[in-house]
Amino acid sequence: MSLVINETDLYFEKAVQLAQEFAKDAVERDKAGGTPIRQLNMLRESGLLNLLIPKQYGGEGQPWSAVLRIVREFAKVDASLAHLYGYHFIAVGSPHWHGSPKQKEYYYTESAKNNWFWGNSVNAMSRSLFGKRDGDRYILNGKRPFSSGAPGSDYLIISWEDDQTFELIYGAIPTNRQGVTVHEDWDGIGQKQTGSGTVSFGDVIVEKEEILDTNYHKHTAFSTISPSFSQSVLLNVFIGSALGAIEEASKYTTTTSRAWITSGVEKASEDPSILRQYGEFWVEVQGAVSLADRAWVQLDRAWEKEFDLTEEERGETAVLVAAANVLAGKVALDVTSRIFDVMGARSATTKYGFDRFWRNVRTHTLHNPAEYKLRNVGRWVLTKEYPTPGYYS
Amino acid sequence: MSLVINETDLYFEKAVQLAQEFAKDAVERDKAGGTPIRQLNMLRESGLLNLLIPKQYGGEGQPWSAVLRIVREFAKVDASLAHLYGYHFIAVGSPHWHGSPKQKEYYYTESAKNNWFWGNSVNAMSRSLFGKRDGDRYILNGKRPFSSGAPGSDYLIISWEDDQTFELIYGAIPTNRQGVTVHEDWDGIGQKQTGSGTVSFGDVIVEKEEILDTNYHKHTAFSTISPSFSQSVLLNVFIGSALGAIEEASKYTTTTSRAWITSGVEKASEDPSILRQYGEFWVEVQGAVSLADRAWVQLDRAWEKEFDLTEEERGETAVLVAAANVLAGKVALDVTSRIFDVMGARSATTKYGFDRFWRNVRTHTLHNPAEYKLRNVGRWVLTKEYPTPGYYS
Amino acid sequence: MSLVINETDLYFEKAVQLAQEFAKDAVERDKAGGTPIRQLNMLRESGLLNLLIPKQYGGEGQPWSAVLRIVREFAKVDASLAHLYGYHFIAVGSPHWHGSPKQKEYYYTESAKNNWFWGNSVNAMSRSLFGKRDGDRYILNGKRPFSSGAPGSDYLIISWEDDQTFELIYGAIPTNRQGVTVHEDWDGIGQKQTGSGTVSFGDVIVEKEEILDTNYHKHTAFSTISPSFSQSVLLNVFIGSALGAIEEASKYTTTTSRAWITSGVEKASEDPSILRQYGEFWVEVQGAVSLADRAWVQLDRAWEKEFDLTEEERGETAVLVAAANVLAGKVALDVTSRIFDVMGARSATTKYGFDRFWRNVRTHTLHNPAEYKLRNVGRWVLTKEYPTPGYYS
Amino acid sequence: MSLVINETDLYFEKAVQLAQEFAKDAVERDKAGGTPIRQLNMLRESGLLNLLIPKQYGGEGQPWSAVLRIVREFAKVDASLAHLYGYHFIAVGSPHWHGSPKQKEYYYTESAKNNWFWGNSVNAMSRSLFGKRDGDRYILNGKRPFSSGAPGSDYLIISWEDDQTFELIYGAIPTNRQGVTVHEDWDGIGQKQTGSGTVSFGDVIVEKEEILDTNYHKHTAFSTISPSFSQSVLLNVFIGSALGAIEEASKYTTTTSRAWITSGVEKASEDPSILRQYGEFWVEVQGAVSLADRAWVQLDRAWEKEFDLTEEERGETAVLVAAANVLAGKVALDVTSRIFDVMGARSATTKYGFDRFWRNVRTHTLHNPAEYKLRNVGRWVLTKEYPTPGYYS
Repeated sequence: MSLVINETDLYFEKAVQLAQEFAKDAVERDKAGGTPIRQLNMLRESGLLNLLIPKQYGGEGQPWSAVLRIVREFAKVDASLAHLYGYHFIAVGSPHWHGSPKQKEYYYTESAKNNWFWGNSVNAMSRSLFGKRDGDRYILNGKRPFSSGAPGSDYLIISWEDDQTFELIYGAIPTNRQGVTVHEDWDGIGQKQTGSGTVSFGDVIVEKEEILDTNYHKHTAFSTISPSFSQSVLLNVFIGSALGAIEEASKYTTTTSRAWITSGVEKASEDPSILRQYGEFWVEVQGAVSLADRAWVQLDRAWEKEFDLTEEERGETAVLVAAANVLAGKVALDVTSRIFDVMGARSATTKYGFDRFWRNVRTHTLHNPAEYKLRNVGRWVLTKEYPTPGYYS
Repeated sequence: MSLVINETDLYFEKAVQLAQEFAKDAVERDKAGGTPIRQLNMLRESGLLNLLIPKQYGGEGQPWSAVLRIVREFAKVDASLAHLYGYHFIAVGSPHWHGSPKQKEYYYTESAKNNWFWGNSVNAMSRSLFGKRDGDRYILNGKRPFSSGAPGSDYLIISWEDDQTFELIYGAIPTNRQGVTVHEDWDGIGQKQTGSGTVSFGDVIVEKEEILDTNYHKHTAFSTISPSFSQSVLLNVFIGSALGAIEEASKYTTTTSRAWITSGVEKASEDPSILRQYGEFWVEVQGAVSLADRAWVQLDRAWEKEFDLTEEERGETAVLVAAANVLAGKVALDVTSRIFDVMGARSATTKYGFDRFWRNVRTHTLHNPAEYKLRNVGRWVLTKEYPTPGYYS
Repeated sequence: MSLVINETDLYFEKAVQLAQEFAKDAVERDKAGGTPIRQLNMLRESGLLNLLIPKQYGGEGQPWSAVLRIVREFAKVDASLAHLYGYHFIAVGSPHWHGSPKQKEYYYTESAKNNWFWGNSVNAMSRSLFGKRDGDRYILNGKRPFSSGAPGSDYLIISWEDDQTFELIYGAIPTNRQGVTVHEDWDGIGQKQTGSGTVSFGDVIVEKEEILDTNYHKHTAFSTISPSFSQSVLLNVFIGSALGAIEEASKYTTTTSRAWITSGVEKASEDPSILRQYGEFWVEVQGAVSLADRAWVQLDRAWEKEFDLTEEERGETAVLVAAANVLAGKVALDVTSRIFDVMGARSATTKYGFDRFWRNVRTHTLHNPAEYKLRNVGRWVLTKEYPTPGYYS
Repeated sequence: MSLVINETDLYFEKAVQLAQEFAKDAVERDKAGGTPIRQLNMLRESGLLNLLIPKQYGGEGQPWSAVLRIVREFAKVDASLAHLYGYHFIAVGSPHWHGSPKQKEYYYTESAKNNWFWGNSVNAMSRSLFGKRDGDRYILNGKRPFSSGAPGSDYLIISWEDDQTFELIYGAIPTNRQGVTVHEDWDGIGQKQTGSGTVSFGDVIVEKEEILDTNYHKHTAFSTISPSFSQSVLLNVFIGSALGAIEEASKYTTTTSRAWITSGVEKASEDPSILRQYGEFWVEVQGAVSLADRAWVQLDRAWEKEFDLTEEERGETAVLVAAANVLAGKVALDVTSRIFDVMGARSATTKYGFDRFWRNVRTHTLHNPAEYKLRNVGRWVLTKEYPTPGYYS
């Protein structure tokens, strides 16, 4: 939509072209599920997987907002690919905020050079993957659910509990590491090609240098800010989905919908009540878009400040991102359900697949409850206390 | 829910038992689509297909409220069967309000005797089935979309346009009449087993006595009240879906959901914010339930008065049913989407199929736009003018 | 509205006539605040103050629903008088559920004979009135806020804390008892003539027989059900306010509003978007009306069963009333704010006083938070646990 | 709120200081109504009345966003003064977009030099003030309602219909022109000190040079863009009101509200459900804030381009402002009503005057219906057609 600040840099143009490709079989792929191998390869070839990696390591050195704008663009047509693309950077960036400088350098450099696509297997709530110390290294056994992006990935960010101390530890390993099995058992009602199923681990060895040295930057604001990056990916998936839903619906309404028999107009797109509803959609979505845009300005600053980020800046970012996430989720759920009202009975068929927008948003808005994000925001409004850093705040 | 007026008549008990049967494979049948042949046969055997047929014609002589209560009960577990069951009576009753007394008697009697299940092929907006006069009879060519219940039916209510006068004419024919082809091409995102696809007609003969004699009761309030019956079926499908969604969700929350990590409680069902949300669901749904209950009292009166129904009574019924329909659709859409918030991320899988509630409601709330029903209600509030009788009011 | 079950008993007719009187200067009295002395006298003369008092004690022996229907009717034009009228019965009934059979008999009989109007001074959250034992009697010092109905009343239900045990004790005394001062200091943004200000007590003597013998029926379901009666009064104030708001707005829209300049219609009452909005108001309010009607059926049963009421019946009543209260408050807040949208800019003047509907509802929906009622309802939905009897449940 | 882009220019600082002064007796002045003479004089003395006037004419040469930020700031404590301040610039700017270059120069220069405060008397829907040609000049008789800012003003923008052609003509005259009577008859339920009452005209002479030469720039995009400026003032009044309501409520909740008896917490500000609600308020208001911020960027561009503004740019501005206006009005109505829920029953008294936020927003959201703005937005979404320039678009 042309009122959005117009950024036509080359990366974004490339992304727009990819999105057009993704759109071609998005409905079919939503039905089929599985892994979008061809599309992941297109991403690898596009160079966009290195967008966030700093230039000194061979990447494109772009800010988070550049990533998030592309996430949003992809989500207009395919929310699974948008999610995979955004979370790829959560994974490839993990050695940066969780590891030692050496690890950051190594993984950024190798990833950029090899065009790796990263998945993850780190679900914080499962407590189902344990590691036994074996000298410097760990041997892992167990499994992790919700391992988005694992199918088709080159590298994985993983986490496990130490079987003695129950401390949570992070590592980075190649997906084809011996003992790692990526199950294609994701069964979501939406986000069908995110491959968010189980990864099981049988005597998987993680070498010393693959264990992220979380102690290195412990207690810094930056090392705990990744939940804001994850939530930003999600919220831009929601926003892109809402924008895409409006876009597809408006095409349908103008080309295919029939005017209602008692409407007194010739075409559905002339029915004042349909115009009003599109107005409502646009208004509420643009509120969320604008707040999301404000959030990514804040994220870019945080990214730039890196380990100089203060607790206050971390707190303000966390509050703003949480707010943007809640609003984006809310309006996306609303709009993706309501589009049918302005398209009519014939639009609700699997042939068009318009319900995928709602199914996608509904699936990924459950990642962490709005209730708890709202309390964090509200506490800050009332007492200026910032959210306690955690897995989801 | 026990606060609902407790009616344990035998018919309802039988329906409850059937619903329990339907529930067993409802998720699988939702995935498979197609025609629920086994379940239709169970309905035939149960005798419930004759519920509304007056006793003098061999039926059970029950009021509309008895039908609608069963529609609601079925919809708790299977909204397709609820829909088929409810619309069966719209079809079997058509000769009653559209035809001559002789036609009413004939179809009621034969249907009761043979336990016929009726479908329809009457979509008012399609203008795609035309009939040529051939002496006393008609010869039909063309097709009708949205022919719910046609697959698996014994008899069909059909409508066509006279190819000269473009008058809309109704008929009742056996589904296996030569030239009738029922296509299993229904492709809805929900209500997957309603078989609401196309019926095509190739030189289909409709004999004189099968042509409903709409002139017989023309201009009576009763002969135009069937939209209120159809909308009542739909609204009770919505309400049953909402009640069923709450019921399934509450089972899941109490048995399977995990407490949120920062909730400070052991079990999800002790989280005050989850309790609050269930409270919200119940409150809004019970508002709709109570209005729907009031509507069926009105419908029972209208049914009882039959051709003595006055225009005023018809108008008040139409207003009340339209209101109940809009409210039921609104709360059902809301609740069937929100249940996921109180179940959590793991509930959004096709294994559980909880999304079928939203898909079902979303599909059938498009039958006719809330906007136009609301205008009818609002006009009456402002000016005491009743809705103009029509296909949808 | 004629679709509401039509009950034209004599009491209700009398109430309708009174309401017409109240309406005449309702806007002026809202501005003036203070005590509606003239209207309270009209109530005394009407005999309606004895409506709930059983016939054997000289009353009219009507059920709670008869009271609540009148509360609703009064609230259409004057929510203060509706509140005073409803709460009068909470006070006059207190010796019934809190006291001994002798006290019940005495207060009912005297109240009926003398046409007493009762106020209260019992706010549960204030802890600011203490009583010292003095033999059989108590001597009270302190004050109570929110003493609705005290100004202009003949009798008062009061409560205090024993200054040694801090037990809460109830009594019934004449308002003109020595040492009682009724302050006209109520300063609400709405419900301006409920006189819900302070009553102060200086060495006020409460004699033994005036102290309600709460031990008499302790632990019975009936003795703790009064919160359901209070909440029913409030919810019918909300509903009456919403209905009154729609009624006044519709008069204004049809007689005074101008069609919007780009509406393409001559009269505001022909603007389809205005019709739609009136439809929305009616639909949501009738959902609340229907649930409220269901609640009063339950309340009548509870009232009839008296001390035979079981815990289960008490629980179901409490859940249903809480639900009806929340829904009524929600729709009333919504509708009383939205009516201005369909009347236009010129309607927002103090001359018309249309804002009093919102101010009244807003003031009295704060009596106890929806949040906690919703949790009680939700807990019951999830676990079938009934609300714990308390001041507000 | 610190997340809002921090602009501490001197003008804004001055405005913040003024706002603190306005706050001191805002509640009292809301009760009293009338004209805020003292505050208007403070505005005159502050120099802020010249903020938008270009530097070459002696003004401060600031963009519209500087004005609107101050409007928003004032509205946090006093929405009437916010409105008067914002609309002052609609009036003082009228010769700029409606008149000849000479008129623009004259009025800007004189206004800057004399620190004039401008009111208006131009209500587009009244058709109650007519002008008779008398050579070069006009003689006016009649009256205009909704003449905000007329009381206490130095100059007035007025409009009348030619009594022969019924053409609408604009003029600028001193408020003390002979025959002009400013009636202090504004009777709004809110915005009580905007003086939006009647101005009557008895043989008022408007000289040739005072008649705005609307022909001069006829058919340019810029000359018709003033509705976007007016709507921007209004929407920032809404947003400021919402922000102010949250601010005052949060002070009350942290200092005065009691924890609910069954909440299990000591202080209301620790109640998770209260935190959640503040979170909800902040989230929805910040969506509107962010969209409004985007709108004023667009308005600054339009202002800068002046008569070079293209139809496309005008259209995009009109759409964005309409959207921001609708969203701001919606969230402000919601939040200003809901704040009471988090403050509790004791907050709803006229002593605190918290209801003024809702009354103010409710009054001025009726200026032009959201319905028609939404249609304009929706038409553009569907067909890329821009709103037809008019009084309100």
